[in-house]
Amino acid sequence: MIVMGIDPGLSLTGWALIEVLSRDKIMPVDYGCIKTTSSATLVQRLQSINLKLQTVLSKYKPGAVVIEELFFLKTSKSIANLLQARGAIILTVSFSKVPLFEYNPRFIKMALTGYGSASKYQIQQMVKIFLRLKEVPKPDDIADALAMAICHVNTRNIKSYNI
Amino acid sequence: MIVMGIDPGLSLTGWALIEVLSRDKIMPVDYGCIKTTSSATLVQRLQSINLKLQTVLSKYKPGAVVIEELFFLKTSKSIANLLQARGAIILTVSFSKVPLFEYNPRFIKMALTGYGSASKYQIQQMVKIFLRLKEVPKPDDIADALAMAICHVNTRNIKSYNI
Repeated sequence: MIVMGIDPGLSLTGWALIEVLSRDKIMPVDYGCIKTTSSATLVQRLQSINLKLQTVLSKYKPGAVVIEELFFLKTSKSIANLLQARGAIILTVSFSKVPLFEYNPRFIKMALTGYGSASKYQIQQMVKIFLRLKEVPKPDDIADALAMAICHVNTRNIKSYNI
Repeated sequence: MIVMGIDPGLSLTGWALIEVLSRDKIMPVDYGCIKTTSSATLVQRLQSINLKLQTVLSKYKPGAVVIEELFFLKTSKSIANLLQARGAIILTVSFSKVPLFEYNPRFIKMALTGYGSASKYQIQQMVKIFLRLKEVPKPDDIADALAMAICHVNTRNIKSYNI
């Protein structure tokens, strides 16, 4: 089965697909990030995220999509942008009829490192090890999307969060 | 021309269409609200908003869609829901290739009553007068959507905000 992770953002959306080959073996399939510029309108930006994700979803036909659960302390223009991008991304995924899951950041850290307060560096190192990568993919949004997909693969038999 | 106003919300999205008959005459075409229940998943809720809006957009083919600009002081779960619904709604409108406009609440109040701090009651009375309605449509989300559409019609030749 192919699992897709999406790290939503209006300026930068990381996406990654991994394949579960056997109980203990997973491998990266493809990953990348969608960049949109603030000189474009909100409509144009949501449309380009939608178009790119549609292309990836129909190319790889993942069996599950994972997105991070959100927590906020205060609102800003960038969080408003992130949330609107997240809504458009969830709608885009729903068109492909793939089940969508969300995990909170602490749960993802726990699933990858056994430690809920792990640093970004520790998470990235575990992504590298799990997927036998030579380097940590950049930007961070791609590594985050890979971490979500790995989290789902490693924990879906225990507890999964359908949204 | 038909102008559509949308007041986004995850639980309740108000929508309204008005038609510009002449320079001084506008009339209501149709309006309603989309309700989704919190017992449904986020995916299901965004999907039902998308489906209903798609139906209305393709039935009436508005020449412009108007949505309120957002301002927030603090984030809560309900604002996060609102923003995600707004993102999905903007994406939905973009599929129909209709130009989308946003106005801030103060500007809408000013356009309808000449007073930027007008109360909800004052706005609703002006909606009733402009559209020659016997009663103010309920819930408030519908009257808000009508107010946005009227605002666009009354001000589009002065300044319009394409998003």
